[in-house]
Amino acid sequence: MNSPQALPGGSGLTALSTVQTPSAVIDTARMQANIDRMQSHMNSLGVRFRPHAKTTKCLPVVQAQIAAGAQGITVSTIKEAEQFFAAGITDLLYAVGMQPGKLSQALALRRKGASLQIITDSIASANAIVDFGRAHGESFEVLIEIDADGHRSGVQPDGDVLLQVGRVLHDGGMRLLGVMAHAGSSYDCDDPESLRRITEQERRETVRAADRLRRAGLPCPVVSIGSTPTAIAAQSLDGVTEVRAGVYVLFDLVMHNVGVCGLQDIALSVLTTVIGHQNEKGWAIVDAGWMAMSRDRGTQKQKHDFGYGQICTEEGVPITGYVISGANQEHGIVSRASGIDMKIADRFPLGTRLRVLPNHACATGAQHPQYEAVLANGEVETWPRFYGW
Amino acid sequence: MNSPQALPGGSGLTALSTVQTPSAVIDTARMQANIDRMQSHMNSLGVRFRPHAKTTKCLPVVQAQIAAGAQGITVSTIKEAEQFFAAGITDLLYAVGMQPGKLSQALALRRKGASLQIITDSIASANAIVDFGRAHGESFEVLIEIDADGHRSGVQPDGDVLLQVGRVLHDGGMRLLGVMAHAGSSYDCDDPESLRRITEQERRETVRAADRLRRAGLPCPVVSIGSTPTAIAAQSLDGVTEVRAGVYVLFDLVMHNVGVCGLQDIALSVLTTVIGHQNEKGWAIVDAGWMAMSRDRGTQKQKHDFGYGQICTEEGVPITGYVISGANQEHGIVSRASGIDMKIADRFPLGTRLRVLPNHACATGAQHPQYEAVLANGEVETWPRFYGW
Repeated sequence: MNSPQALPGGSGLTALSTVQTPSAVIDTARMQANIDRMQSHMNSLGVRFRPHAKTTKCLPVVQAQIAAGAQGITVSTIKEAEQFFAAGITDLLYAVGMQPGKLSQALALRRKGASLQIITDSIASANAIVDFGRAHGESFEVLIEIDADGHRSGVQPDGDVLLQVGRVLHDGGMRLLGVMAHAGSSYDCDDPESLRRITEQERRETVRAADRLRRAGLPCPVVSIGSTPTAIAAQSLDGVTEVRAGVYVLFDLVMHNVGVCGLQDIALSVLTTVIGHQNEKGWAIVDAGWMAMSRDRGTQKQKHDFGYGQICTEEGVPITGYVISGANQEHGIVSRASGIDMKIADRFPLGTRLRVLPNHACATGAQHPQYEAVLANGEVETWPRFYGW
Repeated sequence: MNSPQALPGGSGLTALSTVQTPSAVIDTARMQANIDRMQSHMNSLGVRFRPHAKTTKCLPVVQAQIAAGAQGITVSTIKEAEQFFAAGITDLLYAVGMQPGKLSQALALRRKGASLQIITDSIASANAIVDFGRAHGESFEVLIEIDADGHRSGVQPDGDVLLQVGRVLHDGGMRLLGVMAHAGSSYDCDDPESLRRITEQERRETVRAADRLRRAGLPCPVVSIGSTPTAIAAQSLDGVTEVRAGVYVLFDLVMHNVGVCGLQDIALSVLTTVIGHQNEKGWAIVDAGWMAMSRDRGTQKQKHDFGYGQICTEEGVPITGYVISGANQEHGIVSRASGIDMKIADRFPLGTRLRVLPNHACATGAQHPQYEAVLANGEVETWPRFYGW
């Protein structure tokens, strides 16, 4: 039972059987394989890899990413920067557009010794950074966010604002590091060809912006791109110096539908218990509702809708066709996707423990104060995660 | 500014202006009005009121509910029971079907002095309760869950299982308290007539079950029903002894669409800051993404889709037609619901602070470690909430 050759997810059963439900379980063998595969891919592409810590907000996970070769991390909140810096991780990219109200927190971190990089995508924000930096004698390290795919923030790679922002920062005495982009629309892909196109587009548009900055005489040592789908799909990254990705470390059903992982790669599941049935409807009721799974229904508009999650045995083996089809706060309704299973109570009797693969690992993890990490020796270790801002 | 006559939400601006974003803000004047209105309604109907603490998991809120006249509380997790019991609240109904694996926690709470009531809706679960209770010399207080509207758990009010479960519990030495139901399908209503129908149905079916138990010679002192919509819509509750409701304390956009509150009654909002723009798309980007709002899109299938939330000024005044139309983890996209606002950056410049009314107060609150409570004197008090299991 403690054999390292045991199937991932099956090796920790003795210890896992004592874990209360609902709980967020990490299969560490799968997680480590995901980390190693991505790092190796990045190494072969000749780029630095800066994983996004927002997926787990969990120190042991991030330490495993760094041990494998990651150089610095990406964060989505100042709190993540503060927490990971306190744990000794100093190379931090805060990858959400800097607003004036958070500059004092960024300054405080830098004064403590953090190499905190910030981003901007507007002249107004760049001016605020310069004004604040000058007032406090701080030369912030700044990346300009590029809109490579129209999905969210960023300046146009071929627009005037790019050069104006670069000029404001550089002339204002800030340290212009370069450009960064995130092709979030890659999550909408579901075939290799569309994914290949968006991957090349993210690279091309970001490198184009970098080239324009350099031609204007502005510094641009860093060209940072990334999302889990495009990082995995990338086959060459000419002109790119750094890649970022987050959810690859655990994967989820949305990534499965995008086509960048198999169900057997998903390292996060929610352990749950059957608490009742509605036999004539073919429902088993479990204690994983939306509070445990999150309200994320990311697979709803994809080619395979997994409801609130794919049902697996307690050992982690998917039970094809069974999903959480509905969820209230602390109730999940497990049913067969097609047709009513009139023997649902025989299949999943009261007290049966199941594991549920989530739509979105970032959202599901955020519902839990900690992960229950199933180690290679079969033991379960509690890995705290933090939340809030 | 400290005048108690100031508009709700406007009175705490000086203090609120120092609160970081994103934050979950409670307008305590609105909250207290919601509490008083519901308690007064329950008093006039002659029933006990047992609010559901799952909405806020926050002691000051629950203390305000009890101060107004609530008798005991409802909880959705054993952790809520433990936390509120530790704070001195002893009368607790755990309103999720009891599973064998949680009986030891329930026993521990009762041994400490908690009057913890549990529920069941199956012979298998009732037998497990009896077996465990007998083995530990504990006579658990148990309610039978009734399925009054087909939306989730519960036994049929006119089926054989009801009496069988009652017999198992009573003959097994447990204290059969009675019946309870939750008409969760009331959330699907959007007109007074359908709401009136489901309200009467919840009462009628639960009372029917109680009558059947009594005719079979079984005790049934408690007849407990409730949901926020049906509690508000109830005009007479013959045969009912207790009502439960949760979200009424803060309200939200889903409840607004159901027709049981106005926007001016919603006491929860998320404070956020504008961090950027995409002018040609009419987007302002704010720092309230789905991590701050939750992924709940409860208004999507209702008559008015508010996206991820209704935009208000920092003072809490709704800005008609502007919603969070899209959300990533830490980014929200604010846009006009109809047509592109080409002057979005003039309307909401960088650094503008806004408040966002949420779809679902239970889900949005769960994303935050604390509420920032704006008191009547204009000061802001931090009210911690807990999460996890």
